[in-house]
Amino acid sequence: MPVSGKLTVVGVGPGPEDWITPATAATLAEADELFGYGPYLSRLPGRLGQIRHASDNREEMLRARQALAAAQAGRLVAVVSGGDPGVFAMAAAVCEAIETGPEAWRALDVAFEPGVTAMLAAASRVGAPLGADFAVISLSDNLKPWPLIERRLKLTSEADLVLALYNPASRARGQGADAAFAVLKSCRPLSVPVVLASAVGRPDERIVFKQLGDCDGAGIDMRTLIIVGASATRLIERPGRSPLVYTERFARSP
Amino acid sequence: MPVSGKLTVVGVGPGPEDWITPATAATLAEADELFGYGPYLSRLPGRLGQIRHASDNREEMLRARQALAAAQAGRLVAVVSGGDPGVFAMAAAVCEAIETGPEAWRALDVAFEPGVTAMLAAASRVGAPLGADFAVISLSDNLKPWPLIERRLKLTSEADLVLALYNPASRARGQGADAAFAVLKSCRPLSVPVVLASAVGRPDERIVFKQLGDCDGAGIDMRTLIIVGASATRLIERPGRSPLVYTERFARSP
Repeated sequence: MPVSGKLTVVGVGPGPEDWITPATAATLAEADELFGYGPYLSRLPGRLGQIRHASDNREEMLRARQALAAAQAGRLVAVVSGGDPGVFAMAAAVCEAIETGPEAWRALDVAFEPGVTAMLAAASRVGAPLGADFAVISLSDNLKPWPLIERRLKLTSEADLVLALYNPASRARGQGADAAFAVLKSCRPLSVPVVLASAVGRPDERIVFKQLGDCDGAGIDMRTLIIVGASATRLIERPGRSPLVYTERFARSP
Repeated sequence: MPVSGKLTVVGVGPGPEDWITPATAATLAEADELFGYGPYLSRLPGRLGQIRHASDNREEMLRARQALAAAQAGRLVAVVSGGDPGVFAMAAAVCEAIETGPEAWRALDVAFEPGVTAMLAAASRVGAPLGADFAVISLSDNLKPWPLIERRLKLTSEADLVLALYNPASRARGQGADAAFAVLKSCRPLSVPVVLASAVGRPDERIVFKQLGDCDGAGIDMRTLIIVGASATRLIERPGRSPLVYTERFARSP
């Protein structure tokens, strides 16, 4: 009977190595086998004897099951997400695989390491847009029906929360961001600041500042994180520098 | 006229050094002066010649202004938050100080470094409770009226979002967590999993699993991060191990 291994789910942040925590770096260095989306794995330095299982973006459940099987066979396994593994990433898939898989997987040593998720990196590039209450919504309708997304956009607008929107371009039919902006324009002031942060921390990083009223799906791809301001979100113009966007810490009665 | 310095707002994560990103560690090592809440500063290794300005938890604006003045005087300044500086922390205070301060502060070199915020660390200890859409709300009514907090708890429940609740014990009068649970019990299934994560990453870390129906303010202090599940949040029992909590990635129509 094989000695039981360990599976750790990690996130390598949105881009540069200097956003990878030392705890995650240590997990990656020790692992016998890495499982992850190809482009994430290819960013990481290699180690002799370490096996890499690169897979496609849409194969999360298969990847989770293969990684759990490797841990059950006694291997030290790391499952690699971008960003933080717990936010729209591999941690939930691994949990689901455990719940629906063989009973023995519940006895495995499984751990999760926090990381820098895309919204925190995007926010850091412009100031503090997430400095007060906010909501975090994926615009992908691969995993949930569009009417539910629309309902959440409306209710979080009614609650006057800042929004961090993930996966704006993976809507199966049509543009998620375009449809989301149409909904948001009907329920937020058109003047609230919007930040479109693409490929944050990568060489081709691009930050665009807009007002909600001027937003549509143009220029948005799956590497874009969108932050939509609430009524307390402010833009500070700075001569010779890009603006700052932040949400006031004080809030008034509804 | 003094050469202009630089101010960087950083977050040192919820606890251990191995959750501090290399980018933040480099900023801290280079800084001439550190400004922050005393307990955060005392966690950091010292450097000869580096000046530390420790201040109280409630002096964010004063601290921000002093740090900006030091940067204006040509110093390399780091403002130190716990967690991520952009989530209920110093980044918003620094932005507010810039907007309301002397015009010259808008010309300063100001940067923000992302970090591991408490909810990501708490989530990593139990699985993937934030694996689907969620909202992030501070229960402190120092900065906003309680009726607004209550309204946000209700609307985000109506939207069936997972909740990450910060500052559960700083309500000026009475227990924020106790009042919040009373609201949530009236608008969420009483069976949804709740995680009370205290002092995550510290020697006295404590994780408690409950159902919403059994929750009140007992045992909750200002170092507790509360995660309240949505209808899609599940708890997996594991023999000989603590349970996993995760939110299903798939969601059904409202």
